[in-house]
Amino acid sequence: MTIEIHCWQMTAPNAPLERSVRRFDETSLEDDSVLVEVAGCGVCHTDLGFYYDGVRTRHELPLTLGHEISGRVVAAGPSSKALVGRDVVVPAVIPCGECEPCARGRGAICAKQFFPGNDDHGGFASHVVVPGRGLCVVDSEALAASGVDLPMLSVIADAVTTPYQALLNAGLEEGDTAIFIGIGGVGAFGVQLAKAMGAHVVAIDVDEARLERVAAHADLQLVAGDEPRATKKAIRAWAEEAGHRPWGWKIFETSGNAGGQNLAYSLLGYDAHLGVVGYTRDKIEVRMSNLMAFDATMRGTWGCLPEHYPAVVDRVLDGSVTLDGFVEKRPMSEINEVFGAVHAHEMTLRPILLPDFG
Amino acid sequence: MTIEIHCWQMTAPNAPLERSVRRFDETSLEDDSVLVEVAGCGVCHTDLGFYYDGVRTRHELPLTLGHEISGRVVAAGPSSKALVGRDVVVPAVIPCGECEPCARGRGAICAKQFFPGNDDHGGFASHVVVPGRGLCVVDSEALAASGVDLPMLSVIADAVTTPYQALLNAGLEEGDTAIFIGIGGVGAFGVQLAKAMGAHVVAIDVDEARLERVAAHADLQLVAGDEPRATKKAIRAWAEEAGHRPWGWKIFETSGNAGGQNLAYSLLGYDAHLGVVGYTRDKIEVRMSNLMAFDATMRGTWGCLPEHYPAVVDRVLDGSVTLDGFVEKRPMSEINEVFGAVHAHEMTLRPILLPDFG
Repeated sequence: MTIEIHCWQMTAPNAPLERSVRRFDETSLEDDSVLVEVAGCGVCHTDLGFYYDGVRTRHELPLTLGHEISGRVVAAGPSSKALVGRDVVVPAVIPCGECEPCARGRGAICAKQFFPGNDDHGGFASHVVVPGRGLCVVDSEALAASGVDLPMLSVIADAVTTPYQALLNAGLEEGDTAIFIGIGGVGAFGVQLAKAMGAHVVAIDVDEARLERVAAHADLQLVAGDEPRATKKAIRAWAEEAGHRPWGWKIFETSGNAGGQNLAYSLLGYDAHLGVVGYTRDKIEVRMSNLMAFDATMRGTWGCLPEHYPAVVDRVLDGSVTLDGFVEKRPMSEINEVFGAVHAHEMTLRPILLPDFG
Repeated sequence: MTIEIHCWQMTAPNAPLERSVRRFDETSLEDDSVLVEVAGCGVCHTDLGFYYDGVRTRHELPLTLGHEISGRVVAAGPSSKALVGRDVVVPAVIPCGECEPCARGRGAICAKQFFPGNDDHGGFASHVVVPGRGLCVVDSEALAASGVDLPMLSVIADAVTTPYQALLNAGLEEGDTAIFIGIGGVGAFGVQLAKAMGAHVVAIDVDEARLERVAAHADLQLVAGDEPRATKKAIRAWAEEAGHRPWGWKIFETSGNAGGQNLAYSLLGYDAHLGVVGYTRDKIEVRMSNLMAFDATMRGTWGCLPEHYPAVVDRVLDGSVTLDGFVEKRPMSEINEVFGAVHAHEMTLRPILLPDFG
């Protein structure tokens, strides 16, 4: 059967995204490829990096962006027929599963990984073709009982799972202190996950309103000032008062700007772990040997392995991580306005675009 | 019995080290403290940091520096009597073994750790008092058969063990690519250890003579130029030619200067690990988000846990790591000249000072 895939295409950086349509023959689905009818697609800063900052996409333009996708499988290649009819979250990074890095558990750097909206057309569309391997199937009954709907689950791909992988990479344990810098679309979920995992959580942002939203999950909220040392002192005083360890802090940079990175680096102390989750092309000045003096670690996290998605979906469905109040649904036809508003920092909630191609 | 401990004392930064003597009552040795008759004490850049750069010692001045110590135990407190008469290497960092970080295997950041020549008087002396716990006992027969002598083993504390700990922290495995930047007193041993552990080894330095000395252990030797990209390109070409992985490089910064750190950071690629072993107070400019894009890690290493010393001693005694040709013995009475020469980069070999108090 041939269907029409409606989509919004990026034709060039900064040029308005254009509505387009292409015909797709379902019988052309090979191997484990599946066709997903998009329920919702989140807007991520990585999309904005491609669109506004000239970060190159691996697939040539024109390209449909969007890598935070939830939806329902409506057709599948020979080896993935069992997925048809299932609700799924599409991981933002789908490793090939067969190469040497994959065999060594390093799927994040798999050279043949599939990143929708980068390696091929993504989720700002009515449908998307993705590999069936690694799709996270959602239990429809649990979903119906949860009060969360399928479009909302789209942000699990990236916004919720990437900080989860960063927490795993940091070896976060119950009783650890977890510090998040930048409580935006990613950091707000990091705070919730860390709390759910038993950490003592510190939330830092320049914007008090963002801190308010995580008040129920953060043990300490700090408005970042101009002086990193004052912030460090405030955390130390809180830790001492509460009887938390003054060492081994797990710091997560989720702001993706140079100011946040500077603060994150200045919070390093003995046995600290600094997780680099946010992205900016800006550079900062660091005394690298502090890592040696503190026997400390910095670790960048690129996406999340598909095998960890079910645990995150469980946290969302059981209510320990709340999406409500952190996301905002918008019709996909408003994509250009939404991109502009996110870029101008005018949106405080993570936008999820719902297909409305009529 | 009361003995005289002869020593060289630092009274103030940049003031000539002064010969001094103090009386010590052996019966005052408490708990597991032992008195070691110094065979040799290596000169490390950390000593120079205290002496020339004003890095504060934890013990007040005057203080006897020196933390690369080998010698023989000549007296011991009640719980360490069994050590008397044994040849030992004194770890540069001796954790308390009882606190929470120690219990979690993080002795490197133990707040009660003992660092000779920093927490108390060190090895530029006839004798030194150190905790018996964690001392690395050397098999005297194996030593006699090895062609290495006890004074030479002093550099194992720090110069050989610290890069070993950095290799362990990097999870180095057979077949990995290990890249050392700065083939001085620490890097030269790192190269040898990595080779002995089955890695493909790249040695980089600005000084061709230093590269010559590790020619038997390095698979690729590169003179660092002004353009990090050219160095990266050369390593990539070598790896491709030799069939080594283009990802997962283990990079070790052992130069302790900003130029080396810049090069190290610019060599980061997918799944890279950058071990920060050298120390400098200088800052460098980095694009921190590269760690995220590459899913890469940076890890500082402070000393080496005493439990790993025996494995390193074994490597030295079995000849897989050579000290000969990398160290130079000098009478301890030349300490001021030797400090000056190391500081002026006039010494190419790691100096070991031999007590000659007459």
